[in-house]
Amino acid sequence: MKQDHIPRATIQRLAVYLQELEHLQRDGLEVIASEPLARACEVNASQIRKDLTYFGEFGVRGVGYNVSGLINALAKALSIDKQWNCILVGVGNLGKALLSHREFSEHRFTVVSIFDFDPFRIGQMVMGLEVMDGNRIKEVVAGRDVRIGIISSPAERAQRAAANLVEAGVKGILNYSPARITVPGDVVVEYLDVMHYFYSMAFTLSRRNR
Amino acid sequence: MKQDHIPRATIQRLAVYLQELEHLQRDGLEVIASEPLARACEVNASQIRKDLTYFGEFGVRGVGYNVSGLINALAKALSIDKQWNCILVGVGNLGKALLSHREFSEHRFTVVSIFDFDPFRIGQMVMGLEVMDGNRIKEVVAGRDVRIGIISSPAERAQRAAANLVEAGVKGILNYSPARITVPGDVVVEYLDVMHYFYSMAFTLSRRNR
Repeated sequence: MKQDHIPRATIQRLAVYLQELEHLQRDGLEVIASEPLARACEVNASQIRKDLTYFGEFGVRGVGYNVSGLINALAKALSIDKQWNCILVGVGNLGKALLSHREFSEHRFTVVSIFDFDPFRIGQMVMGLEVMDGNRIKEVVAGRDVRIGIISSPAERAQRAAANLVEAGVKGILNYSPARITVPGDVVVEYLDVMHYFYSMAFTLSRRNR
Repeated sequence: MKQDHIPRATIQRLAVYLQELEHLQRDGLEVIASEPLARACEVNASQIRKDLTYFGEFGVRGVGYNVSGLINALAKALSIDKQWNCILVGVGNLGKALLSHREFSEHRFTVVSIFDFDPFRIGQMVMGLEVMDGNRIKEVVAGRDVRIGIISSPAERAQRAAANLVEAGVKGILNYSPARITVPGDVVVEYLDVMHYFYSMAFTLSRRNR
């Protein structure tokens, strides 16, 4: 890798490139020039070229990118060329939506166990996994190299979920609940709050109408 | 408003400030200094002050911010001080998760109709709304000032959903499906792809372990 700090926006664009390239690969394409790839991803061709320079040299001038080669390089750049074991806490609608996300398992994110605090849910089977007691995370996942925890519980149980995930040795938490959580400094937290997208949309539409 | 272009990251932080302030208000707080507000929002106090300057002068030096005043100002700044009528296409787990999001209706985003293309779902009741035929969006929402469409259908039906939303006069689309959609230039599209957060997390955790 050329640089150590890569802007977050770049990571998100790399993810879009990867997804588009995989669509193109499924359609049987083997080589693509940066212009049509850029159009498919809705960015400028110069943006794609710039983003890829973070990770080395790709593409052949006048020919384009080798689709499968670029997919592998992007997967490696994003560190999704290896398996990531995940656990999920909160098997409501949102949890179920995540578990049934097709791309999820295709990209080496494997949910090895699912948990809930609701006694009515514990013991149910969801997508082939038994819902386990959210207070037993540590003992259930012991020795399984679980590094990512997903919180899809209601806001008022998010902190309890976070504490139990940290206790179980999880180093990264994706928090889908609308609550802020407190964790030790060595644990990475990403908040994914759907409301932010609605706020952003309302803001953009208002500006357009002025 | 002081400036016309406001960075997207600022909008997202404003949304976080707003959410924290609303929590604080529910806890009975009337005034808060920028330092504790910053801690609650996990940003620097100088960042908060800087972000708020986009929208005018807030707070009294040495005293702090009036909580309800700042909530109102932020809601106005984000244009969520008025009601936004929304419709949703795709009433699977993800659609249901969105419909049951507590903050959603509290913030003046009102889902007035829900749609699906699956004949088995059409006619069902979900969160008090009847699932309507996704091919009848235009006639169902005629005259209802619907401006935001939410796509929570599977990828292969996203484009059909988008076309029907545009035909019905929607000006902003929040696309939760992992498919790119094509719409006229005057329609704003926001993509919310959960995978991007997983990619970002995998990337961050990999960097930490080196």
